[in-house]
Amino acid sequence: MQQDPSKILLDSTKRLLRRGANRHLKKIVNKTHAADLSVVFRSLSLSDQHRLFNMLEDLEQKGVLFSELEEDIFLDLLEELTLEEIVAILETMPPDDVADLLGRLPQEKADTILKKMKKEGSHEVEDLLRYEDDTAGGIMIPDFIALREDTTASEAVESLQKEYQDVEMPFYLYVVDEYGKLVGVSSLRQLVVVPPHTPLKEFMTTDVFSVQTDMDQEEVAKIVARYDILAVPVVDETNRLVGIVTVDDVIDIFRKEATEDILRMAGAGEEFVETKSILKSTRIRLPWLFASCLGGIIALYIINQFEGSLNKFVYLAAFIPVIMGMGGNIGTQSSTIVVRGLATGRLSIGDIWSVVFKELSVGCILGLVYGMLIGTVAQFSYSKELLALTVGLSVISSMAIAALVGSLIPMAFARIHIDPAVATGPFVTTAMDILSVFFYFTIATALLGI
Amino acid sequence: MQQDPSKILLDSTKRLLRRGANRHLKKIVNKTHAADLSVVFRSLSLSDQHRLFNMLEDLEQKGVLFSELEEDIFLDLLEELTLEEIVAILETMPPDDVADLLGRLPQEKADTILKKMKKEGSHEVEDLLRYEDDTAGGIMIPDFIALREDTTASEAVESLQKEYQDVEMPFYLYVVDEYGKLVGVSSLRQLVVVPPHTPLKEFMTTDVFSVQTDMDQEEVAKIVARYDILAVPVVDETNRLVGIVTVDDVIDIFRKEATEDILRMAGAGEEFVETKSILKSTRIRLPWLFASCLGGIIALYIINQFEGSLNKFVYLAAFIPVIMGMGGNIGTQSSTIVVRGLATGRLSIGDIWSVVFKELSVGCILGLVYGMLIGTVAQFSYSKELLALTVGLSVISSMAIAALVGSLIPMAFARIHIDPAVATGPFVTTAMDILSVFFYFTIATALLGI
Repeated sequence: MQQDPSKILLDSTKRLLRRGANRHLKKIVNKTHAADLSVVFRSLSLSDQHRLFNMLEDLEQKGVLFSELEEDIFLDLLEELTLEEIVAILETMPPDDVADLLGRLPQEKADTILKKMKKEGSHEVEDLLRYEDDTAGGIMIPDFIALREDTTASEAVESLQKEYQDVEMPFYLYVVDEYGKLVGVSSLRQLVVVPPHTPLKEFMTTDVFSVQTDMDQEEVAKIVARYDILAVPVVDETNRLVGIVTVDDVIDIFRKEATEDILRMAGAGEEFVETKSILKSTRIRLPWLFASCLGGIIALYIINQFEGSLNKFVYLAAFIPVIMGMGGNIGTQSSTIVVRGLATGRLSIGDIWSVVFKELSVGCILGLVYGMLIGTVAQFSYSKELLALTVGLSVISSMAIAALVGSLIPMAFARIHIDPAVATGPFVTTAMDILSVFFYFTIATALLGI
Repeated sequence: MQQDPSKILLDSTKRLLRRGANRHLKKIVNKTHAADLSVVFRSLSLSDQHRLFNMLEDLEQKGVLFSELEEDIFLDLLEELTLEEIVAILETMPPDDVADLLGRLPQEKADTILKKMKKEGSHEVEDLLRYEDDTAGGIMIPDFIALREDTTASEAVESLQKEYQDVEMPFYLYVVDEYGKLVGVSSLRQLVVVPPHTPLKEFMTTDVFSVQTDMDQEEVAKIVARYDILAVPVVDETNRLVGIVTVDDVIDIFRKEATEDILRMAGAGEEFVETKSILKSTRIRLPWLFASCLGGIIALYIINQFEGSLNKFVYLAAFIPVIMGMGGNIGTQSSTIVVRGLATGRLSIGDIWSVVFKELSVGCILGLVYGMLIGTVAQFSYSKELLALTVGLSVISSMAIAALVGSLIPMAFARIHIDPAVATGPFVTTAMDILSVFFYFTIATALLGI
């Protein structure tokens, strides 16, 4: 597969839909991977989506597609289906995926569906629904292989063929004691390599990483990434094994968290809005711009306070953009570096003072460089030494303070357990706009002697 | 493991280093995971790093640590070691990791080391060094299980115990024809479940995803993520199986690419600079601020052109920050959404016009809302209808154009194969500063009738 197949697939699907070539469509729909179908669905009308969905012959395939669809599309499509259809599809799905989907529905609808689902199945699903969405418990799957330590390699292989046939990720064999508590781990590979009669306790690893159900999903993901493992076992408060978090979910977590961080820093909500309608997108973005609006209005009043200076030296206005721009940009650099450093674990909250000091130093050096450059431009344009000095000093102070504020704010937020990404973008930009303008006019008034 | 152990580990290591408690240190160093040790190394002096490194008893452990260390630290540490030591360590490492490490060294040093390494080992390493760093070939490992299609399940198990004992990721068994061309895939799990005498061709899957050696690593990662697989086979132009890319590398790629995108958008280089020295960090960030500086200077000259208006209506200066701020912020929202959408595959270059149209619509709506708000503030502060109208219209035009430019620039860059993240941050901000100021003063001059 050398090309992204989505585009070709979408084009031919649309053509066939227009032509009403149902036989062809049915063939395509049933042999396409659900991940690719979900991309096609994004560009189709609801009625076309429903039409294609009905062409899927395998209930299990419909379930996989459910999991792959984006939330909005899934919710709309669900409205088109009967309760019986929905339940029949959900019953083919792994309980963790069902719990995920039900979590997206209104409480009432989720309850109705749960009640309709077979007793045993829904029991597992209900267990999973108890955990917070973003914790190890919320993302774990309850399908794992748990064996006792006196089980031999050949007995283990036998139970793989019978009892654990449906386990999704059979790469690790967890070893538990009589209370279900996790005591060790072995791998499918070791099973194949040791003599058949060796009991697990002789070749299992007792040094096993595990996480508790309430651990934040991002922390879980970091552990899986750090130790290059394919799955991490999840235990409850009593160390009883209750599930595993697998590496494919870890990839999804990292991608989702990165997207959230990027969007939050830009003050664009946290969910990806581009696939939503114009009005929804507007509503999500509106409040984040308010910080910037408020900052601008405060800057307006600050400048008003210096009306005297501005009246005498009207050319001061011309330097507002460059001073604001330099402060804003270095502030964004600093806060972005800190937010990403915290997210990837390269910086920790304990480093706060060394990080802030370093940023301040960088801010001073860069401030000096650009202060001299822009000061020179001012001198060249107006031939007024004091103006050039004012502009140069303002750039230096604005950039140094921006680097300080830009690194301090996210660090401080992280320390009081507020997501630094949320706080950073709009706050740092707004704070910097206000501070830059204030320092500029204060320096100007002092130096130009009003 | 409920806590990030790095902090505790670092503190006790530092204490023991001060006390010179070598026996204790040796114990800690030899039982700590290399991933955790690498974090500790970040906060130690080079001589302390070297001291701890020498305490590692196992050459293989030293090799794992090599791979985990950050580039700068690794390069400094390497200077402390003799050529013989280095070669002895590298010989214990998988060839793909050796190729990675050698890729970081100056050509001459890498060649000296390669020559010293055992013939067979370095041959594999040299093969890997041929591929570009960021391609499937550059990140693949040459350790995989390749069997012929008439091999039976029990024969396959046997070869796992002998020939393929050292394979890192033995979860997929690739099936190749007499020329080494990829024809199918099976899994360790299937091997255990089928009757021992079944030949591979009877239970292998022939529908196998593969990628070519020159595919961009980000594309490879997307395929692994999309289809939830643990490894993807890499083939050369003739479909001969030459390596696999494993899921743990995919995680690293996604995290690295996300970090690069975030930093590029903030105009802060692309490598994480916070662990580098102040001077290095300054040098990387300096050029990115130049765009903003240039934009500010252009804005300065634009405002100068309107000196007449500004002289008459000096209060116009007070609204510069809010108009620039609103334009800049919505522009950042738009460009961030587009850049992230392209990176995650939710948007494709083909969507350019629908995306730009949507952003323009959002920009108009938000512009109206904030234009009225800020216009009202202007009216309230100065009681001049025409000024309020000027400010309102400027906010609307500035925000609408910012949304347009903010979405168009990254889309256009992506289309001509320039990384939209590089182009976006500094370019969009700078373009918006200039446009906002220009439109504001043009509208003011027209409306206030000079």
